[in-house]
Amino acid sequence: MLPDEVMQTAQRELCEYAGLRASVMEISHRGEDFLYIRRETESLLRALMEIPSHYWVLFLSGGATGQAAAVPMNLTAAADARAAYVITGHWSRRAAAEAQKYCVVHVAADTAASRHTVLPHSLDIPADVAYAHIASNETIHGVEFPAAPAVSVPLVADMSSNILSRQMRVADYALIYASAQKNLGPSGITVVIVRPDAVCPRAQTPAVWDYRRQQEEESMYNTPPTFQLYMMGLYLKWVKRRGGVEAMERQNREKAALIYDCLDKSDFYKTPVKGDCRSIINIPFTLPTDTLTASFLQGAEKQGLLGLKGHRALGGCRASMYNAMPVAGAQALANYLSEFERVANRK
Amino acid sequence: MLPDEVMQTAQRELCEYAGLRASVMEISHRGEDFLYIRRETESLLRALMEIPSHYWVLFLSGGATGQAAAVPMNLTAAADARAAYVITGHWSRRAAAEAQKYCVVHVAADTAASRHTVLPHSLDIPADVAYAHIASNETIHGVEFPAAPAVSVPLVADMSSNILSRQMRVADYALIYASAQKNLGPSGITVVIVRPDAVCPRAQTPAVWDYRRQQEEESMYNTPPTFQLYMMGLYLKWVKRRGGVEAMERQNREKAALIYDCLDKSDFYKTPVKGDCRSIINIPFTLPTDTLTASFLQGAEKQGLLGLKGHRALGGCRASMYNAMPVAGAQALANYLSEFERVANRK
Repeated sequence: MLPDEVMQTAQRELCEYAGLRASVMEISHRGEDFLYIRRETESLLRALMEIPSHYWVLFLSGGATGQAAAVPMNLTAAADARAAYVITGHWSRRAAAEAQKYCVVHVAADTAASRHTVLPHSLDIPADVAYAHIASNETIHGVEFPAAPAVSVPLVADMSSNILSRQMRVADYALIYASAQKNLGPSGITVVIVRPDAVCPRAQTPAVWDYRRQQEEESMYNTPPTFQLYMMGLYLKWVKRRGGVEAMERQNREKAALIYDCLDKSDFYKTPVKGDCRSIINIPFTLPTDTLTASFLQGAEKQGLLGLKGHRALGGCRASMYNAMPVAGAQALANYLSEFERVANRK
Repeated sequence: MLPDEVMQTAQRELCEYAGLRASVMEISHRGEDFLYIRRETESLLRALMEIPSHYWVLFLSGGATGQAAAVPMNLTAAADARAAYVITGHWSRRAAAEAQKYCVVHVAADTAASRHTVLPHSLDIPADVAYAHIASNETIHGVEFPAAPAVSVPLVADMSSNILSRQMRVADYALIYASAQKNLGPSGITVVIVRPDAVCPRAQTPAVWDYRRQQEEESMYNTPPTFQLYMMGLYLKWVKRRGGVEAMERQNREKAALIYDCLDKSDFYKTPVKGDCRSIINIPFTLPTDTLTASFLQGAEKQGLLGLKGHRALGGCRASMYNAMPVAGAQALANYLSEFERVANRK
């Protein structure tokens, strides 16, 4: 979901950008006009996230799944290097499986026994690992780290689903990566925020994912996804106008509270995650039967409440409330949840 | 450059696609509506290029520079495998340098001595190489293969700049790759057309570039660049409406003839490439002095003739005439070339 204002600006400017007699998709990525977009987008992201100035900000391709490979390639120079992975759900498990191709993966914790409904009490992180990796929010399981876990090695986080949704201390991380399609813009572009001293790429790193080379070339060693970068710029301006990350967090907490309150006071709905590791972005929940679930989803769609079907890996339902969803959207969903329960219980 | 009709359709549909109350950027890539776009785009490309049905058609990220790494990863199972590279300009040289990270590169020919103004007379391709790689068109040097060179090993071609610009026999190639930003749509998506028997990926291939895995998942192992895929579909429909690749080729030859005729009959302009290896897409040319070049470019821009500046690697000027440029555009450029020469000679 993208904010209406962002979509309307994109639509207005689509055929001709800034009086250039060409679309932003058509202008050269080497020209001054595109370079301005690229630099402005980086400045906005740096300001909104308060990124320390010595960190690199890269715009790459390949999504978070691409970075799952690129991270060990760039942070471990040798194939026998070790890295610690904290498994808290589907995405962190997938990142660990990908990393295994490039380094020795040490599992620091795995919450599979709880079906990924809790965060680990403690992490087993050997001192010799190159880094420790977490997924800061698991979109399918609805588990989110309330803050960066305290570790004594460089911390790497996949923040694809909760970047810009709450205040984060970037200095707690050696590397943050995020694909765009949740809280940054449309799919097809990936942000990497990295502390330069953590980078020691191996010779076999593909040039398009070589952090050092891409930093030297302002992420334009190859043609970047220009339209996505432009859209991200529009999106970041929208976040800024709306009060920045602090305002996003306030609103996201309000939205999440509306839904969790509704689910918690109900015997009809179940939501598996409890306590302060509950995601404020993705809220999985189930209904008593598959028939009720189908009927719930059908009714929701009729009311314009879209995308409530759970991920195919887990089933059930899931409310995803990225920045672009207004509080009114969460309120509408809460009302529908209550109404559907009331009608179902009467039958 | 993208066709006006394509841009207008994209603009009209940007905020709401097909009555779905969401943009094509917002709908789930796992939903039926996006799957329809994805399948239709593949069908259009298969029909337009007459791709043999057993070939895989993949839509990946990372551009042609990404594929420069992905090709050896997918076509050579062992790190000591050999591959032959035909160096005819900037892009094939860069592809060979990237491949060297993953296999032993054998240079089958290098036209550097001619400053890449000719094609090699013969290729030295050992029988034990896994494949031979060419760039079918060199955008900077303006050299294009008139047809697939005859080789007895699997042939791989980077067709980023001339895919769909002329008829190609896909069966002559084991693998064709092309980034989108020339003749397929906006930047940020890459097409790979590959004969399955050529594929033998090594264990360290990143999942997002693993041809076999992506084929199994319809190129959706990770979130694809959905907007680019949609735009490519619009673009391919436009090519089809305009008469397909045959019509594109006829028009491109006409456009190229207009410019080459103008350059050839002049003593003022120089164009370095002669004979049947002249690109019908990218025509590099120079003026007598840097001052005249600057004045030529400035005057061109005033007339709406954009993007004539040569690539930073070579300087000078370059006319790029992708499918979206109408014959009238080439005629306008030819007129401007003649007029500028006439005025300059009078001074």
